[in-house]
Amino acid sequence: MLVQKQSFRADALTLACGQSIPIEVGYETYGTLNEQKDNAILVSHYFSATSHCAGKYRETDAAPGYWDALIGPGKAVDTNRYFVISTDNLCNVQAFSPDVITTGPASINPKTGKRYGLSFPVVSTKDNMEVQKKLIDSLGIKKLRAVMGPSTGGMIALHWAVNYPDMLQKCIGVITNAQHPAFTSFIALQHAMRAGYMDPHFNNGDYYESENEPVEGLRLAAQMMMVGAFSPLFFERTYPRDSLETEPYCSLDVMSSPEKAMYDVIVERTKTADLNSWIYSCKMLINHDIAHGFESMDDALSRMKAPLLMIPNKQDILHPWQFNAATAQRVNELGGKAEVYAIDSDLGHMAGILQADLFANKVKGFLESN
Amino acid sequence: MLVQKQSFRADALTLACGQSIPIEVGYETYGTLNEQKDNAILVSHYFSATSHCAGKYRETDAAPGYWDALIGPGKAVDTNRYFVISTDNLCNVQAFSPDVITTGPASINPKTGKRYGLSFPVVSTKDNMEVQKKLIDSLGIKKLRAVMGPSTGGMIALHWAVNYPDMLQKCIGVITNAQHPAFTSFIALQHAMRAGYMDPHFNNGDYYESENEPVEGLRLAAQMMMVGAFSPLFFERTYPRDSLETEPYCSLDVMSSPEKAMYDVIVERTKTADLNSWIYSCKMLINHDIAHGFESMDDALSRMKAPLLMIPNKQDILHPWQFNAATAQRVNELGGKAEVYAIDSDLGHMAGILQADLFANKVKGFLESN
Repeated sequence: MLVQKQSFRADALTLACGQSIPIEVGYETYGTLNEQKDNAILVSHYFSATSHCAGKYRETDAAPGYWDALIGPGKAVDTNRYFVISTDNLCNVQAFSPDVITTGPASINPKTGKRYGLSFPVVSTKDNMEVQKKLIDSLGIKKLRAVMGPSTGGMIALHWAVNYPDMLQKCIGVITNAQHPAFTSFIALQHAMRAGYMDPHFNNGDYYESENEPVEGLRLAAQMMMVGAFSPLFFERTYPRDSLETEPYCSLDVMSSPEKAMYDVIVERTKTADLNSWIYSCKMLINHDIAHGFESMDDALSRMKAPLLMIPNKQDILHPWQFNAATAQRVNELGGKAEVYAIDSDLGHMAGILQADLFANKVKGFLESN
Repeated sequence: MLVQKQSFRADALTLACGQSIPIEVGYETYGTLNEQKDNAILVSHYFSATSHCAGKYRETDAAPGYWDALIGPGKAVDTNRYFVISTDNLCNVQAFSPDVITTGPASINPKTGKRYGLSFPVVSTKDNMEVQKKLIDSLGIKKLRAVMGPSTGGMIALHWAVNYPDMLQKCIGVITNAQHPAFTSFIALQHAMRAGYMDPHFNNGDYYESENEPVEGLRLAAQMMMVGAFSPLFFERTYPRDSLETEPYCSLDVMSSPEKAMYDVIVERTKTADLNSWIYSCKMLINHDIAHGFESMDDALSRMKAPLLMIPNKQDILHPWQFNAATAQRVNELGGKAEVYAIDSDLGHMAGILQADLFANKVKGFLESN
C-alpha cells in the first residue's frame, strides 16, 4: 500500500494556553471516504513517531508505517472498508525529517521571520485534538467511526471522547492513560527537559544557527524515553554484557560495550530530531490530563458516549495497566461503557507499537460491534 | 540501640583497575564478637546509604539505620547472638555527611594535598569487598557467619561468596544481582553520569573550590536513581496531580505540582551528596559483574560454597526477580545451593530496604539453618 503525505493548514488555532497561532501539520489517508462520509477512522501517533502508521511512501522504503500490522486492506482496521486519517502532532520531535510536517519551536514564526525557539507557546494533547477537529471539519466529516492511537495518540483519542462525544462511535486507547502517570513524567520526560536545558550548547533554545547544536542533550533525552519504553528483559537480551572487557574498569569515560551499542542506536535515531521540539513534547505529556479544563475527572469521564477500549501491556512501566483498569471501572460506574484488554509482553511500552498482532483481532471485533 | 561510627584505615589497597591507594572507611558494629570469633555477620549498604544499618547514633536521631527492622536485639539478625559489622563503601555518594567516612574523589590526595576529583581511580564492587577483607582480617575473624546486603550491598556479598568461598557460611543478596542489569544501567546510572558531566558548573570534576557547584547535575542524577527505585503506583499516590492548576499549561519552565514536590525532596536529599562521588558510584554499578576477572559466569558461580539466599521484589524494575531466578538455577545446576525468596510489593526496589519485615523471618530461618 503506497501512501502520500499531505498537508493541512489553519490560519489560527487557539491553544489551551490562550495563544493563537497559524499551524500546518502533515497527514495521510488510507482507503476511500464513502459518499455518506461515515466510514472514517482517525489515528494519532506516539511520541517519537509521525503520521506514517501504515503502508509505504516509496516502494524502496525499508519499513512500512508503525501500525502496518493493524491497518491495511483486509487487516483489523480494514482500509477496504474504512477511510483512515492519520495526522502529525504539533511539535513533532522529528522536526527535521523530510517526511514530517509540523508546527513547533523549529518552525518559522511568521511575525519575525525566524524560528520560534522557546517563544513558541506551550501546546497540549488537547490542542492536537483541536487541530484534527479542524481537519475533520474541512473534509466534511460529521461523525467518525473511531478515534484511536497508541501512547500520546491514545491520549488525543481520549480527549475526543470527552470533548466531542457526539462525533465518534468508538474510542481506542492503546498503551495510554487519561492522566499522564507521575512516574513516567519523572523518569522519561522531566529528566529529559532538564538535561536538555543543561546542555551548554542549548543557549535557551536559540541554537538553530549555531555551529554547535545541543546534540548530547538531545541524545540524553532520547535515551531516557527509549529505555523507559522497553523492558529490563528486552535490554538484557539486546545489549549483552561482555564480562571479559577491561577498559571500562580502568577509565571513567570509557563506556561498556552495551552502553556504547545503546548510544550508537540513539545517535542514529536522533539525526532528524530537534531538542526544542523534544522539550515541548515532554511538557505536553507531563501536562496530559483529560480532566484539565473540567471540574473533575468524574466530570470529564461522564461526558464520554462512545464505548471505550483500552489496551495496556501488563509489562509496560510507562503506562501501567492498573491505571487503565481504574479508569474503565469509573467510566462504567458513571454509566458509560469501557473495557480493558491487557496484553502481556516483555517488550514493555513498545509492545503496543511493535506487537499489534497481539490485539488486532480485539480491535477488529470492537470496531465491528454495535 | 546506640551505636558509634568507627574508622578503618589501610595504607595501600590495590584496586581491580591496578592502581593502589591509601583508604579510610567508616564502619559500625552491633552486638559482641565472641571468643571464638565465629559469630560475625558482615553487612554492606545500598547506593545512597551509609554503614548505618541499625540503631541510632544519638537518642535524638529522627530515624534508626535503614535495616533496623531486621537487625537488633531479638530481631532476625539477632545482635544478642551475632556480631554485626557494617561498613561504608568507597566513593560513598553522601561524601559530605558528618556520619560518613569514605575514600573517593572528594577525598584529599595525600600526594598533592588537594581533592582527587576525576584523578581518583575507578573503583569496583569487588574493591569494596577487598576493603572489608582487610577490616575482617584486622579483627582476627577467620570465618563469617554470613555476608549480606541490599542492592549494591548484595553485589558486594556475592563477590565474597565467589572470591572467598571458605570465609563465609551464608550469603544473602537482597534486591540485587550477579551482574548489573543493562536496563538499570541505562535508566538510572549512565544517564546520571552524562547529566553530571553536562552541568556547566561541573568543570571536569574540579568544582570543590568553585562558587557555583554543579547542584543541578547532582539533583538530576539523584532523581533518576530515586524514581527508578520506587514504582509507578508509589509515585501516583505520593505525588498526586492537581487537575485544576493552569500555570504549567502556559509556561514551559513552570513545573506541575507533583514535579515540584519531587524536586523539593531531591534538593533535601542531596544536601550532603557529592556529584563526583555519585558518578564514580554509578560507574561502579554499571561495571558490577561477579564474572569479571574469571573465565565466565559459570566459572564464577561454581566457586561458591556458602548457601545463597536471594530476595528480589517482583515489582522491582531495577533488579528484576527473573535474573535472580536464573542465577539461583545455574548455581544449583553447578552443584551449589541457592534459593530465591521473592516478595511482592509496589514500593519497587525500595521494598528491600523499607519493608524488611516482609522477609525477616526468612532471613532468620536461613541464618539458623545448617
